[in-house]
Amino acid sequence: MRSGDGGPTRRQLLTAIGMMGGTVALYQAMTAMAHAAETQFTGPPNLSGARPGASVIVLGAGLAGMLAGYELNKAGYKVQILEYQQRAGGRNWSLYGGDTYTELGGATQKVGFQPGNYLNPGPWRIPHHHATLLHYCKAFGVALEPFIQFNHAAYVHQTDAFGGRPQRFRALAADFEGNVAELLAKAINQKALDTAATTEDLDRLREGLRDWGMLDKDFRYVKGLRSSEHRGFERPGGGGVNGAPIPSEPFALHDVLDSRIWTQMSFFMNHEFQTTMFQPVGGMGMIGKAFARQVAPLLTFGAKVSKILQDKKGVTVSYADAASGEAREARADFCVCTIPLGVLNQIENNLSSEKQAAIAAVPYSSAVKIGLEMRRRFWEEDAAIYGGHSFTSQEISLISYPNSDYFKNKPAVLLGAFAGGPNSYRLTGMTPEERIETALAQGSVFHPDSYRKEFMTGASVAWSRVPWTLGCCAMWNEETRKAHYQTLVAMEDRVVLAGEHASYVGCWMEGALLSSIDAITRLHQRALEA
Amino acid sequence: MRSGDGGPTRRQLLTAIGMMGGTVALYQAMTAMAHAAETQFTGPPNLSGARPGASVIVLGAGLAGMLAGYELNKAGYKVQILEYQQRAGGRNWSLYGGDTYTELGGATQKVGFQPGNYLNPGPWRIPHHHATLLHYCKAFGVALEPFIQFNHAAYVHQTDAFGGRPQRFRALAADFEGNVAELLAKAINQKALDTAATTEDLDRLREGLRDWGMLDKDFRYVKGLRSSEHRGFERPGGGGVNGAPIPSEPFALHDVLDSRIWTQMSFFMNHEFQTTMFQPVGGMGMIGKAFARQVAPLLTFGAKVSKILQDKKGVTVSYADAASGEAREARADFCVCTIPLGVLNQIENNLSSEKQAAIAAVPYSSAVKIGLEMRRRFWEEDAAIYGGHSFTSQEISLISYPNSDYFKNKPAVLLGAFAGGPNSYRLTGMTPEERIETALAQGSVFHPDSYRKEFMTGASVAWSRVPWTLGCCAMWNEETRKAHYQTLVAMEDRVVLAGEHASYVGCWMEGALLSSIDAITRLHQRALEA
Repeated sequence: MRSGDGGPTRRQLLTAIGMMGGTVALYQAMTAMAHAAETQFTGPPNLSGARPGASVIVLGAGLAGMLAGYELNKAGYKVQILEYQQRAGGRNWSLYGGDTYTELGGATQKVGFQPGNYLNPGPWRIPHHHATLLHYCKAFGVALEPFIQFNHAAYVHQTDAFGGRPQRFRALAADFEGNVAELLAKAINQKALDTAATTEDLDRLREGLRDWGMLDKDFRYVKGLRSSEHRGFERPGGGGVNGAPIPSEPFALHDVLDSRIWTQMSFFMNHEFQTTMFQPVGGMGMIGKAFARQVAPLLTFGAKVSKILQDKKGVTVSYADAASGEAREARADFCVCTIPLGVLNQIENNLSSEKQAAIAAVPYSSAVKIGLEMRRRFWEEDAAIYGGHSFTSQEISLISYPNSDYFKNKPAVLLGAFAGGPNSYRLTGMTPEERIETALAQGSVFHPDSYRKEFMTGASVAWSRVPWTLGCCAMWNEETRKAHYQTLVAMEDRVVLAGEHASYVGCWMEGALLSSIDAITRLHQRALEA
Repeated sequence: MRSGDGGPTRRQLLTAIGMMGGTVALYQAMTAMAHAAETQFTGPPNLSGARPGASVIVLGAGLAGMLAGYELNKAGYKVQILEYQQRAGGRNWSLYGGDTYTELGGATQKVGFQPGNYLNPGPWRIPHHHATLLHYCKAFGVALEPFIQFNHAAYVHQTDAFGGRPQRFRALAADFEGNVAELLAKAINQKALDTAATTEDLDRLREGLRDWGMLDKDFRYVKGLRSSEHRGFERPGGGGVNGAPIPSEPFALHDVLDSRIWTQMSFFMNHEFQTTMFQPVGGMGMIGKAFARQVAPLLTFGAKVSKILQDKKGVTVSYADAASGEAREARADFCVCTIPLGVLNQIENNLSSEKQAAIAAVPYSSAVKIGLEMRRRFWEEDAAIYGGHSFTSQEISLISYPNSDYFKNKPAVLLGAFAGGPNSYRLTGMTPEERIETALAQGSVFHPDSYRKEFMTGASVAWSRVPWTLGCCAMWNEETRKAHYQTLVAMEDRVVLAGEHASYVGCWMEGALLSSIDAITRLHQRALEA
């Protein structure tokens, strides 16, 4: 059996290595491969040999643009980064108390959070295998702390399950697993699967199901200390005279199915959401700030680009200076353009019609995030929930608990909504005040005693109304990938695009960085050939 | 349907509340109950009205003893705490560089860790629902940070699976779930389970299995981007021209069964190991130190108790002072004894024969922990593992990765073994040097390129050889619980026992604290009656 490209399969390769070098070599090869599979990042780009005086204009001071500027500048290129906003970081952004934000439509919010508290409107968590981002966080001195993604103690709420009452993830997941284990063990017992696997394997699987699903000796999932070990107790064990635990009653299969708990169980198993995840200490925006410190001399803020024209000798970018209103021009040998596609699509350029079609082909997702500052950490104090998310079928989709300052006696910011797709449309259309009210109304289902009572102030960002992106991130599908992706990322004469939209790790900072590295590596090769 | 004690069932109660107060009342009752079920802790004990001058001797300055001393002293009792060692904390203990530890048999280790690095020989993680411990950590100013228990990226190793090669938890768990989902969907398709649930529920379950197990449209678990989303990719997505991800090949069911991955999957679902877990910043011993600060004036160190005799008016404790060798006596109205049972069993006393039988009836577990200081964090840098455990069928049982100082360029201490039961016997019998060598040999299976190369120094604690406990913690079983538990915890005239051994939360600090609260609450009632 050979793999598609005609080369040896992984198994064949490993067998060959094993025959040559014995188990140690085989083992080391496996380990090396397992490592390689974590990421496409192989270290900072090698851009040695840059021609003296060669110059690059980078458009956009998000992470992709700043990384391009940083690495190209380090390699000897003359770099200028033009940024529309008065800050660097792009979607890597935290809103703090005192910040002001005006969305499309004109609504302006003055954020009222206490010092140190923040909302991350864009990215908010970092997978452990996003090696590029982690590399530069370390290189640029960004302190990271664990982001609790998976929390067994948080709630799951479906309006049409359990009479609308949220239940702990742990109980629903345990009961799903218990029921699945019992039913499959039953099917194995009934010889219903004897053609699907060997009898020996089915026997071993059945024993495994007993352990995994906390089945009793007769392969049944029943009320008892054993099932309560997973789903939680009616009264957990304690000390002294009344120390004995009291088991809880499993939910009926019918009710567990109502909860659709597999949605969350599957979600937590997504490679990008697997433990361990991280967040910067002090807000995601710390990453953008750290990148900005590295490229500070290269940055020009308040530059509204209106035209990108390349000719045989270079690229000319026309832009308006926000402060003076003056029209200005920048010129360089090459251009790395990281402007989000929806914005870029409105900028005059002389790229090929195929490239322009690719730029126009990719819609951006809409997403809404709402931060709610609460007087005290009632989710910890009253419900023993430390970080993680409680999910709901309502528009807010989830609420997420803060991953810093656990146990502290001071106000904290909950993420009160993270809505995407259809769930975000009505929220996007609302005023900031209406969004807060909706978040309070819907989020109260999880913490009815405290949610409104402890609320202090809120802030929201609807990405479709963000002036400098016109959306959250690029939404490729199989069709558009086939028709336009390679055209979009191909370097066209002196211009190359970069950003999460030019990657297969869309909507993640890692995608922006990997795209940037690939783009500048190709730009450098082109420059050497020129 | 009624519950065993003749009272209304939970469901009946909720229905009744629902009829009386409508859904809001019902919902609030549910929430309140969900909260109650997290813990038996209801706040610090209420010991008001203590008789002036009433006195208590507390034996042992572990957490149970110090909490008893703290609360009784606060309530007005005159308290003295006698402790055998020259430090407080008991099994709450961290070994730092410069510390010296001598085990039974005489082997002495001088710990050589770098400043700030440590091994927690005893407790090392705190469940989020251990509310008593969390309450006092907050009250006494112990800073906590997340302890990563569940890590999808860590390895699972069985000597007889995959030719002895460890595999990522994520891949094995994804393949187990995928196979279970496919087999159960098949059984449902074949109408093999039509008597087990309604057709509608089976249909819904089958759709759920597709989501949960990443099955394709035909309910098969196959190689592709979909299954790779859970199990990891051969090459994950990247940026630019070569950004497309390459899916990985699922393991064969037979191989997945070899790995016994359900053991770890089930382990992580245990209530006590569910996220979010915590650890004190700087080592578990910070808790013992914080408790000790609260009761410093009450502590007498180096007191080796030889006799505990009560009479109608009080309790006399005879002990030797370690510094002078002098025989001394302490006398008080009451005694809270937290001495581990194996040690207490060797101390002369005039407790009832039933009580003495209970003390003698409970064996202590043996456990071995080994700390290995490594020059660099190769598990993070080379394998993208941040916290969590890699499991093995070898004696060391697991290695565990540190949960602080992530990404730092300095030496760090791995837990190189946490062996219990039969796995611990051979390790216990070894010299400290042999234990380190064994830990390096066995742990190398996970990180063969670096494990020995980066090793600097190690330390080990075999609990059966710890002079002041003679074991790790009390191992009750169903039979001994029935025969002896209530006898053990009952206050006998003026003496009451406390500690993890006098609880149903054995081997956890929470059990020690809940036991202590229960014991002193009963002691106080007795004192008021006296």
